[in-house]
Amino acid sequence: MCSSTARIFSAVIFYSLIIFTNQKYTPDWDSLDKRSLPSWYDESKIGIFIHWGVFSVPSFRSEWMWYSWKGDNPNPETVAFMEKNYPSDWTYADFAEQFRAEFFDPYEWADILAASGAKYVVLTSKHHEGFTLWPSKYSFNWNAMDVGPKRDLVGDLADAIRNRTNITFGLYHSLYEWFHPLFLEDKKNEFKTRYFPTMKTIPELYEIVEKYKPAVIWSDGDWDAQDTYWNSTGFLAWLYNESPVKDIVVVNDRWGSGVMCKHGDFYTCSDHYNPGHLLSHKWENCFTIDKNSWGFRRSATFSDYISIEELLKELVTTISTGGNVLINVGPTAYGKIAPIFEERLRQMGSWLKVNGEAIYSSVPWKYQNDTINSNVWYTASKDGQSVYACLLVWPNSTSEISLGAPVSSASTTVSLLGSSGGPLKWRSGGASGGIVIDVSSVKIYSLASDWTWVFKIQNVRNSKPTVVNEEDYENY
Amino acid sequence: MCSSTARIFSAVIFYSLIIFTNQKYTPDWDSLDKRSLPSWYDESKIGIFIHWGVFSVPSFRSEWMWYSWKGDNPNPETVAFMEKNYPSDWTYADFAEQFRAEFFDPYEWADILAASGAKYVVLTSKHHEGFTLWPSKYSFNWNAMDVGPKRDLVGDLADAIRNRTNITFGLYHSLYEWFHPLFLEDKKNEFKTRYFPTMKTIPELYEIVEKYKPAVIWSDGDWDAQDTYWNSTGFLAWLYNESPVKDIVVVNDRWGSGVMCKHGDFYTCSDHYNPGHLLSHKWENCFTIDKNSWGFRRSATFSDYISIEELLKELVTTISTGGNVLINVGPTAYGKIAPIFEERLRQMGSWLKVNGEAIYSSVPWKYQNDTINSNVWYTASKDGQSVYACLLVWPNSTSEISLGAPVSSASTTVSLLGSSGGPLKWRSGGASGGIVIDVSSVKIYSLASDWTWVFKIQNVRNSKPTVVNEEDYENY
Amino acid sequence: MCSSTARIFSAVIFYSLIIFTNQKYTPDWDSLDKRSLPSWYDESKIGIFIHWGVFSVPSFRSEWMWYSWKGDNPNPETVAFMEKNYPSDWTYADFAEQFRAEFFDPYEWADILAASGAKYVVLTSKHHEGFTLWPSKYSFNWNAMDVGPKRDLVGDLADAIRNRTNITFGLYHSLYEWFHPLFLEDKKNEFKTRYFPTMKTIPELYEIVEKYKPAVIWSDGDWDAQDTYWNSTGFLAWLYNESPVKDIVVVNDRWGSGVMCKHGDFYTCSDHYNPGHLLSHKWENCFTIDKNSWGFRRSATFSDYISIEELLKELVTTISTGGNVLINVGPTAYGKIAPIFEERLRQMGSWLKVNGEAIYSSVPWKYQNDTINSNVWYTASKDGQSVYACLLVWPNSTSEISLGAPVSSASTTVSLLGSSGGPLKWRSGGASGGIVIDVSSVKIYSLASDWTWVFKIQNVRNSKPTVVNEEDYENY
Amino acid sequence: MCSSTARIFSAVIFYSLIIFTNQKYTPDWDSLDKRSLPSWYDESKIGIFIHWGVFSVPSFRSEWMWYSWKGDNPNPETVAFMEKNYPSDWTYADFAEQFRAEFFDPYEWADILAASGAKYVVLTSKHHEGFTLWPSKYSFNWNAMDVGPKRDLVGDLADAIRNRTNITFGLYHSLYEWFHPLFLEDKKNEFKTRYFPTMKTIPELYEIVEKYKPAVIWSDGDWDAQDTYWNSTGFLAWLYNESPVKDIVVVNDRWGSGVMCKHGDFYTCSDHYNPGHLLSHKWENCFTIDKNSWGFRRSATFSDYISIEELLKELVTTISTGGNVLINVGPTAYGKIAPIFEERLRQMGSWLKVNGEAIYSSVPWKYQNDTINSNVWYTASKDGQSVYACLLVWPNSTSEISLGAPVSSASTTVSLLGSSGGPLKWRSGGASGGIVIDVSSVKIYSLASDWTWVFKIQNVRNSKPTVVNEEDYENY
Repeated sequence: MCSSTARIFSAVIFYSLIIFTNQKYTPDWDSLDKRSLPSWYDESKIGIFIHWGVFSVPSFRSEWMWYSWKGDNPNPETVAFMEKNYPSDWTYADFAEQFRAEFFDPYEWADILAASGAKYVVLTSKHHEGFTLWPSKYSFNWNAMDVGPKRDLVGDLADAIRNRTNITFGLYHSLYEWFHPLFLEDKKNEFKTRYFPTMKTIPELYEIVEKYKPAVIWSDGDWDAQDTYWNSTGFLAWLYNESPVKDIVVVNDRWGSGVMCKHGDFYTCSDHYNPGHLLSHKWENCFTIDKNSWGFRRSATFSDYISIEELLKELVTTISTGGNVLINVGPTAYGKIAPIFEERLRQMGSWLKVNGEAIYSSVPWKYQNDTINSNVWYTASKDGQSVYACLLVWPNSTSEISLGAPVSSASTTVSLLGSSGGPLKWRSGGASGGIVIDVSSVKIYSLASDWTWVFKIQNVRNSKPTVVNEEDYENY
Repeated sequence: MCSSTARIFSAVIFYSLIIFTNQKYTPDWDSLDKRSLPSWYDESKIGIFIHWGVFSVPSFRSEWMWYSWKGDNPNPETVAFMEKNYPSDWTYADFAEQFRAEFFDPYEWADILAASGAKYVVLTSKHHEGFTLWPSKYSFNWNAMDVGPKRDLVGDLADAIRNRTNITFGLYHSLYEWFHPLFLEDKKNEFKTRYFPTMKTIPELYEIVEKYKPAVIWSDGDWDAQDTYWNSTGFLAWLYNESPVKDIVVVNDRWGSGVMCKHGDFYTCSDHYNPGHLLSHKWENCFTIDKNSWGFRRSATFSDYISIEELLKELVTTISTGGNVLINVGPTAYGKIAPIFEERLRQMGSWLKVNGEAIYSSVPWKYQNDTINSNVWYTASKDGQSVYACLLVWPNSTSEISLGAPVSSASTTVSLLGSSGGPLKWRSGGASGGIVIDVSSVKIYSLASDWTWVFKIQNVRNSKPTVVNEEDYENY
Repeated sequence: MCSSTARIFSAVIFYSLIIFTNQKYTPDWDSLDKRSLPSWYDESKIGIFIHWGVFSVPSFRSEWMWYSWKGDNPNPETVAFMEKNYPSDWTYADFAEQFRAEFFDPYEWADILAASGAKYVVLTSKHHEGFTLWPSKYSFNWNAMDVGPKRDLVGDLADAIRNRTNITFGLYHSLYEWFHPLFLEDKKNEFKTRYFPTMKTIPELYEIVEKYKPAVIWSDGDWDAQDTYWNSTGFLAWLYNESPVKDIVVVNDRWGSGVMCKHGDFYTCSDHYNPGHLLSHKWENCFTIDKNSWGFRRSATFSDYISIEELLKELVTTISTGGNVLINVGPTAYGKIAPIFEERLRQMGSWLKVNGEAIYSSVPWKYQNDTINSNVWYTASKDGQSVYACLLVWPNSTSEISLGAPVSSASTTVSLLGSSGGPLKWRSGGASGGIVIDVSSVKIYSLASDWTWVFKIQNVRNSKPTVVNEEDYENY
Repeated sequence: MCSSTARIFSAVIFYSLIIFTNQKYTPDWDSLDKRSLPSWYDESKIGIFIHWGVFSVPSFRSEWMWYSWKGDNPNPETVAFMEKNYPSDWTYADFAEQFRAEFFDPYEWADILAASGAKYVVLTSKHHEGFTLWPSKYSFNWNAMDVGPKRDLVGDLADAIRNRTNITFGLYHSLYEWFHPLFLEDKKNEFKTRYFPTMKTIPELYEIVEKYKPAVIWSDGDWDAQDTYWNSTGFLAWLYNESPVKDIVVVNDRWGSGVMCKHGDFYTCSDHYNPGHLLSHKWENCFTIDKNSWGFRRSATFSDYISIEELLKELVTTISTGGNVLINVGPTAYGKIAPIFEERLRQMGSWLKVNGEAIYSSVPWKYQNDTINSNVWYTASKDGQSVYACLLVWPNSTSEISLGAPVSSASTTVSLLGSSGGPLKWRSGGASGGIVIDVSSVKIYSLASDWTWVFKIQNVRNSKPTVVNEEDYENY
């Protein structure tokens, strides 16, 4: 640290000592953790994750293609692919020119997202590759305006989403970059130097917040270094106290090694996180429609995509246990959401049109699943009037569906969402408790949806949900 | 015609006078039309059409992209696309280098095609652009071995299809080429010169037949010139008399202006041809899964693809009226059948697993559709024992399905294909004739398929089909 | 030869039997060899050879790059270069798109050629790679209009040359193509089939003659097959009898194996042919300014280019012994004649301005070089009045220059071309004969040229040249 | 300046206040100007300037191509060139991939530079485009290791120069970058913010000094902002006091607006600066072999390159008046010094082999040029023994050369460098003074060089030079 370069930047390190006066939050987790979750987030329930970047060009293996090629332990398949198809001196940066986005119509995306029933969207403003989808001042000639698409992809999508839909706009942002030389130098120095966050990460975080006012900051790439290296609490204090989105923004939990699943407005804990039971803090299950990748993969076949049944199972189990879902699509380098993705999103949207009341603004019920019927997951209405039993598989050998959890009352009514047939007959489950619903009157092909049927059960004796508003999350 | 160039080739014109002795067919339509249709074709019923070529690179508008850009009446949208995205001196040939097919696995294609239930496949060996997917001796540096994929796409697919499946292999071939200078010269000469067929079309037709032994020659690009210009009858006489595929090959009807819908083993009449009634000659309905293009379009959205319900409607109406279907998919420039196509093919395959007996080797019945129930189309078994009523839409307000055409007998039985529930109850239609099927016992979600249900009706009094073997087609 | 493909073309083979009536020349060498050389060619003395094509893109090793990469016995250096710099599936055809010629100004070339003092130019209309620099009807998408430059390079240069200069325009043309599949098939058939000349070589030879009316056809690529395979005599009979250039065209001697140095208007015998003594038939020395390549080489360094002294030595020795020189330049893929080439051409032009009378329209003298002074080569004026002694090296230790060949008379005068100093003193060589020129009065740096000085010697007793007009060439 | 981003960096601004203790130089011009010029620089006399970068790819107009395309007042020719040849969304960054340097052999360059006789070399480590030829930590994916050449061009050349030659290695570096967003922001803020120098310029200056230890820092791009913005004096104080090159480094005078021609180890004042008279401070004349560009221009023709005579005139006039010459070559994107450049360098080298003693380690004489003979420029030997009269044009009408400046003595001798003929006769100039040299004995073509002849005149009465060592420069 006695090099002259170090001397130049030493002063920078102290900026986090600047006193924020008259502020609600101080830059430490104790203070930050006290913040209440803005209500829109829990009520939205469903978000769409969009992974887009230079990795969409090779579109091979996954969005980690670069790392699988040039990182520690290169993947032999990736290496062979590059050897076969590219000159020996090809670099990852050479792909950027082919990221053309020539068919990108942000309004078309907005329409698809709106049709999916999702309430928020999170776009990768910058993935671990470091390529910024906006014209960052801190990423000269390695951003979507200078190379490749030649447009502000972040700004264009934000505008379309806001002009055309009621969807809330958020941004993913990677703290670290696999191969940024300043990050590598800091890492070599065991993170005792902080050239990279000072000159790159932190300035660009401020830049995207001030420029695009995202309501979600979905941080990532946090595992190598501690939050003090990134000055995460400093940034969050500013974000919560002063930033233009201070009242609405929500952030996840990836702000430094050891922070995940401990701090943040909502927890992600891991990719594809779905614990199967209620958690005591708001959480989110981010998962992919392409089972094997967040970025678009040209080599994916039909079987690599989850079916709508699988998607709805993930959705229902997550909402039931207090999570949000963030469902990922990977657009192509030419700027389209491939039809197979669009189909899943529109299928979800058609399902939500029928069954949305069991999802949006729902709260977890006293029970999340059912000891008698393993294919059922519950949600409840905030007002405590209704319980929703979401049935993943329709039985094909019986006309009765048994539920163990609901305790019926004299005024209990049962209906099937999307069915025009009126209330269903039911009877008490007898000794084993619960209720037994008679579905013999449900006409074949008279239903509005073919997957995951929702029974709305009103006036059960135990209908009051566990949680009635988001402030209670901390006390689960 | 007095130029020296003309003199050189004048001798060539007379080759069609060469006498084919001891041959069954003479090179004239009267003789050629006498040939019987090889039985495999009618029994196969379902083929897959594959449009692949340099047009898969711009993947814009359709496989006619080049013509819409540089042909008569250029399409403003195509022109604008090119102006925006390419240098001003870009040519169509420049696209070829980007036709990489780097993910092309012919065995994967074979598996998808096999899973679709199709019995034959027809690949565009050469479309109007002139780019040959095989290493033609007559298309130096404008073929898939010299430029772009750097492999014999025709040969590789043929091998995979034959090694892995029972699917019959066929080839599409365009007689004309939009911009070939010899064709343009002939055209300017009102087709009194024949440089192009002599030096290009005819040699390459012989080449693909001798090299790949296709069982289908699906000719196209015939409209500008007469069959005498192309010497179609000369080629067909050789094909039927001497070629290595003389016993099995079938050809369509596009062999010169005025020939379509008049001559050929099967008629296509027009793209997407589906007349709605029985024809007196074997025919084929070729149609696309992407409603607007035969080649892959990057800009296509989900709504541009037909649903499985639409696909099955097209299939059922076509088979019922004596046609085959040739269902088109457009692979990508990188060599994949996009998942949305694969999904439709696999959906069709799953349907055919259940309902295939109503389709494969079926024959048209006395009636094709039904005056009482407009959602029903009929086929019949060759042995005259069964009639199949294919129901496109399941009624949602009744548990009875009325059919006007079948005349019941005492031993008539009715079953629903794919249902495990055994024979269905039915009653005579009374005064209006026909039969009424009771579907009240069909359990919701107990069926193996969600679309187009097939009732197998045995022992009706009028079950004998109109046609029992393909020789009768001429006498319809 | 019983394949059907062969049958189709069999008729073509006989076109050479067509009788040319009322013609001067019959298609055999005996007749063709009787033709007199059009006088412009011998009088021109100096031509510029231009090698340009797709090989100008890799611009590596030489214009034979493709063959050195993919031909028999690939060159390891070329293979390594391709492996290092291009994807593994790169083909030669892929280079064509980068042949942009974006800076090609044919009028600029015309000006440079004019400044060089050359009187004719020979452009590679098509080299062994088969890429035609004109939009040939027989090379669809493998020509300069369809791919790469997107213009008619042959036509554009021809127009500029003819509009701007008095230079005669000629074309190089390769009979064979290394990798054309039809040629390879003929070769495999030991040239008993003739698909390639029939469908490619001969049509395009007619095409370039009729379209561009070249005064030189510089044939090449003749070594593999005999002239009967190419039907060379048939083509030449037409060229001499009927073609639009029948009165002015000259052709070289490369028309089939065994023909070189035996038939043709002028002999080339080999590349860089310079026999050092008078020949009995008009001949041409084609040589390159880049010592190692005809096509542009990006890797060439200064020492690879001949100096102006070397160039003039080649020129003087060739003209003296009855040859023409055809000096080669290799333009870049972007369409420029590199400055180092331009410098040599302009240096030659400046020399010819001073010394041209010793070259243009000169004839070989009785002696070509000198037994006393090995640095001297002679030419003579047609009228027999003057002998020109071309001195390659100026002596630095004497002020007398001795010549053995001239026999002086009383009226003999000696002057130095380009010197303003008037006649030089001289004396008879005495016993050893010849004359001794006193150059002591030649002022340092007063000369118009720094290289190869020409003494004009008038009225020597043996000044009558060996040959006074070109008709005598046959009788040398 | 109240934005949060500003706040982050505000601390940085004060780093220049850090006190350098126990140092010879303080960060102000008064102190810095006191430094003596390291002697190697003045003694070297001749350097080679190398302009290489992404601009070498379009290689159009000049190294300012980007600015002429996208800057204020775009040049119509550049705009038209881009419109014709590139897609409409092409950016300058897209050129980088084509900067391949595939033929770059730094040892070949070293050999050429050594052959030129130059004693130092200055390479553009980064031009105004911002692309660093070394793998800078501050220019991620916009440097020669990440994109294009994929190697450390600075390091590789430095190694070759040092391993193979005695040439001193230096680096050009541009302070500003035309289009860097941080620079543009600072500029918009009237340079009251200093994001750009803090985050980019200064760190990379330290980086190149510490990594490559250049003996010359040739700064440029200084005109927009003041030296305080760049903290130039701070950097220079470190460079002179502490850097690894503190004892040998020399810097030019471009460190902020108003600094040029006032401060710095040597002055450049303007490009192609050649004042024609002696200056009171060491200076340098940087000029180009391509008259119109520093970077390689593909469109340059022969007449755009200076002749060796012009080059030597520039050299002689500069050395005579106390300057150094820095002669520019622009290598190609593929890594070669084009032959026309190599020719000029080798010509200079051959001249210096003969005449080097008049140049290297010479000092200005009392007189620089001559009132009688306008084609003569003088230098002198340090020891005061010899005066060198450099004659640009050899007279062609006289055998006497008159010089006005030298005052002869009895022991005066005159010789012609490179002539084997021994001392020349001379006589006193008589009334008009000076001396008259008799060159009648100089044999034509006996000289070792054809251009700019140097007469060495010993023992003249006024031979003592004006300056005998470099410390005196300040007192001129």
